Amino acid sequence: MTKTNPGRFFEDYRVGQVIRHAVPRTVAEGERALYHALYPARQALYSSDEFATSCGLEGSPMDDLLAFHIVFGKSVPDVSLNAVANLGYAQGRWLAPVWPGDTLRSESQVIGLKQNSNGKTGVVWVRTRGLNQMDEPVLDYVRWVMVRKRDLDAPAPAAVVPDLAPAVAAEDLVIPEGLYFSDYDFGLAGEPHRWGDYEVGEKIDHVDGVTIEEAEHMLATRLWQNTARVHFDATAREDGRRLIYGGHVISMARALSFNGLANAQMIVALNAGVHVNPCFAGDTIRAWSEVLDKAETDAPGVGAIRLRLVATKGDCGAFALKDGEGRYLPEVLLDLDYWALMPA
Amino acid sequence: MTKTNPGRFFEDYRVGQVIRHAVPRTVAEGERALYHALYPARQALYSSDEFATSCGLEGSPMDDLLAFHIVFGKSVPDVSLNAVANLGYAQGRWLAPVWPGDTLRSESQVIGLKQNSNGKTGVVWVRTRGLNQMDEPVLDYVRWVMVRKRDLDAPAPAAVVPDLAPAVAAEDLVIPEGLYFSDYDFGLAGEPHRWGDYEVGEKIDHVDGVTIEEAEHMLATRLWQNTARVHFDATAREDGRRLIYGGHVISMARALSFNGLANAQMIVALNAGVHVNPCFAGDTIRAWSEVLDKAETDAPGVGAIRLRLVATKGDCGAFALKDGEGRYLPEVLLDLDYWALMPA
Amino acid sequence: MTKTNPGRFFEDYRVGQVIRHAVPRTVAEGERALYHALYPARQALYSSDEFATSCGLEGSPMDDLLAFHIVFGKSVPDVSLNAVANLGYAQGRWLAPVWPGDTLRSESQVIGLKQNSNGKTGVVWVRTRGLNQMDEPVLDYVRWVMVRKRDLDAPAPAAVVPDLAPAVAAEDLVIPEGLYFSDYDFGLAGEPHRWGDYEVGEKIDHVDGVTIEEAEHMLATRLWQNTARVHFDATAREDGRRLIYGGHVISMARALSFNGLANAQMIVALNAGVHVNPCFAGDTIRAWSEVLDKAETDAPGVGAIRLRLVATKGDCGAFALKDGEGRYLPEVLLDLDYWALMPA
Repeated sequence: MTKTNPGRFFEDYRVGQVIRHAVPRTVAEGERALYHALYPARQALYSSDEFATSCGLEGSPMDDLLAFHIVFGKSVPDVSLNAVANLGYAQGRWLAPVWPGDTLRSESQVIGLKQNSNGKTGVVWVRTRGLNQMDEPVLDYVRWVMVRKRDLDAPAPAAVVPDLAPAVAAEDLVIPEGLYFSDYDFGLAGEPHRWGDYEVGEKIDHVDGVTIEEAEHMLATRLWQNTARVHFDATAREDGRRLIYGGHVISMARALSFNGLANAQMIVALNAGVHVNPCFAGDTIRAWSEVLDKAETDAPGVGAIRLRLVATKGDCGAFALKDGEGRYLPEVLLDLDYWALMPA
Repeated sequence: MTKTNPGRFFEDYRVGQVIRHAVPRTVAEGERALYHALYPARQALYSSDEFATSCGLEGSPMDDLLAFHIVFGKSVPDVSLNAVANLGYAQGRWLAPVWPGDTLRSESQVIGLKQNSNGKTGVVWVRTRGLNQMDEPVLDYVRWVMVRKRDLDAPAPAAVVPDLAPAVAAEDLVIPEGLYFSDYDFGLAGEPHRWGDYEVGEKIDHVDGVTIEEAEHMLATRLWQNTARVHFDATAREDGRRLIYGGHVISMARALSFNGLANAQMIVALNAGVHVNPCFAGDTIRAWSEVLDKAETDAPGVGAIRLRLVATKGDCGAFALKDGEGRYLPEVLLDLDYWALMPA
Repeated sequence: MTKTNPGRFFEDYRVGQVIRHAVPRTVAEGERALYHALYPARQALYSSDEFATSCGLEGSPMDDLLAFHIVFGKSVPDVSLNAVANLGYAQGRWLAPVWPGDTLRSESQVIGLKQNSNGKTGVVWVRTRGLNQMDEPVLDYVRWVMVRKRDLDAPAPAAVVPDLAPAVAAEDLVIPEGLYFSDYDFGLAGEPHRWGDYEVGEKIDHVDGVTIEEAEHMLATRLWQNTARVHFDATAREDGRRLIYGGHVISMARALSFNGLANAQMIVALNAGVHVNPCFAGDTIRAWSEVLDKAETDAPGVGAIRLRLVATKGDCGAFALKDGEGRYLPEVLLDLDYWALMPA
């Protein structure tokens, strides 16, 4: 009997099954510093304890995407080791800040299964939850992946396709306890633009670009204990290239979006997301955003803004997205839809 | 109206103007560890809490150059985003140690302006101060940069050129409160040479070399939240090369200088500095030092030593600096002049 | 008189001599996070304070190999700066966990000397000890290196070759105070295999591979303050390649061994080790293990397992080690023999 983990195949999943993921992780100042070294992250609330305190928090929490990567990484050995593709995200919500010293673990429930017509693969939907050391949920999201079958003759399960909302409703957003932006220091935050200054439909070109290196994406992906072989082993693919973890592109694009969205401080929901094209070392990532929606919240001075965040590579001009046929352009890496909190 | 930061141009500065820079930053053990991973830094006072305590401090402070980079990085979006060149430093003093957990912000006052005769650019002098969460200054220095004009027809301001001393006077050096070297452990520090063993005019070849990688200088520069595009975007320059942040060369050279100057523990003043030639990934950095001056201090067992630190690349031999015409050699990257504290 | 460290030569060592190494180092959460970014380390006890507490410890200690590298790195300027080869390790024991906030220093005693018949080099055996801020030993091991003579005419010392056991005896293993695995959570640890499931002679192919980058091995090696020039200076060797610190290969192979040995939580002894072939950037490292021995311990639920850990590069198939003549294959990088603790 082999002792190494072969990963789960399509026929190993059952709707309703709960998979408790391995290797809990304590996160602290070290992970925070590395996040700032890996991405040009400058949102003041995640950079300064003083700034976070002036917004009603007990200190600066760990970056919201750092929490996402840690929770996601744990699910990889159980969910996506034999995945052909990471198809999408939905209904993601950040439920509580992660503080330095917290220990995170995660678990996933299978909420949907559908074998593909080719009989070789199937789609698995899971709802993954991140929990802290008090067993409080800190993050909750749905993702679906295309997974290989081990045995092509295994019977197809009854198809269950979950009904997923296109976006988290504004009234379902969870505002961190105590948060207020009524005493917000726009000077220290880096830009004067408040929630009221953004209009639905407005697009922002974030201007800056970052050329990606192998060492950096591997450091990041390891830090999240995501061990999918394609990210690390140059011999895993025929073309000798290491596929960059999609989350690295998400964090890079979000950090680049500071330039124009410095006050979109906290991400509170992940409505949807597609990793459109693969990213490789040497690519230069740029980003642009579009305001999709706005909503008020009950927290003092806090508005919610729904944003599309698009990451591109290469020389495709500002606001590149789809061609005339509605197909994504080859330079588009990421099309992400999220809610963030801003001073109103 | 664009929401992204276009940076200030020459005509946007006024003498006397104070610019409060954005994004305060809490620094802690993570930044300290990264500093040790990015540079071969071995000065014992910045490596060991026990060693620092035996010198009268409450623990090991953050590396003095780490404090410099954090303070400097904040000024980049306001001072040097449209700079053609970083021309020099003067009158820099470290005023208080930065401790793990401190939150730093910075602000700059414009102290000089002079339009160049070509009418396209001008020189801006700023005095930048770093402050901690108690609003105590931790660092103060002058730098001047050449900045582009937005509008070539904008009138030239009255020229104001600050009168800058060639070096900080020994009596103006600020010794960290409580510091003493009267019980100094030379064995643990790594070398037996004390202040009295160095002579003015003496030169030291630091022997070791480090070949620079893209991933490393980008990790460092991001960690200081310095987001100047030329450091990260391989498409920003016509030659496809990323320009390495000059501060990366300063830290690398200072760390290399351990070999021969292990007891030059704390940097307390930056007298002058020129980034002579650009540095790129693949360059192998070496360093040499020259003793420029010595002074006694009031602190027990603490002497001050004024050092020239020169960083070079390539195969130019020891002590390379200038040619017969007094021009810097093409292999010289950095010519820095600073005061450090040593056991007397 | 030169102030830089030329390193010791063969004739500078005397049997019995104790060398106190320089630059004590405080290690904390930053070093921990970097370890997880540099290596795919997932052993739960070093990842989660909660998991470690559930095993009777006061929190998660620093990774055992991190402690090794810090202690080893300090010995480099005194022991191996002029070494031609790092020949072996023996009788290594971890004596106490290293906790975040601890300050480590190290010292070595010369326990053997033997000049080689060529008269140009000799072998030096040292016993190196790592000590924390309470002067408690945390680690103790023997290594031997081949060192150049400065003066070929210097007389050969009387040969003293220490008598080294091929392995640490099971009864000499030091179990961390308070450790128990009687309440061990196999689900959180990542694999169901307990000590009783492994058989002497069993081999495990750890499947995964990691392609090595220059930036990563330099970050790691600097973090341990190991400053041997060949690791950093691309001009140091005629072939323009930087030799990767052998300890980087040890940590990478150990981390890869998680896949099949997730429950081999703590390394408690280093029986032997050979860096068989040099490793360079671009190499893809894989690993396999062989169970060499098993032993019971007095700690509740804790068994000891003796493992051979082999790291290879390139395409040499599983379990590659030696050819028909008993010579190591050219693809083998490391042959390490250690004891670890597992839930019984």
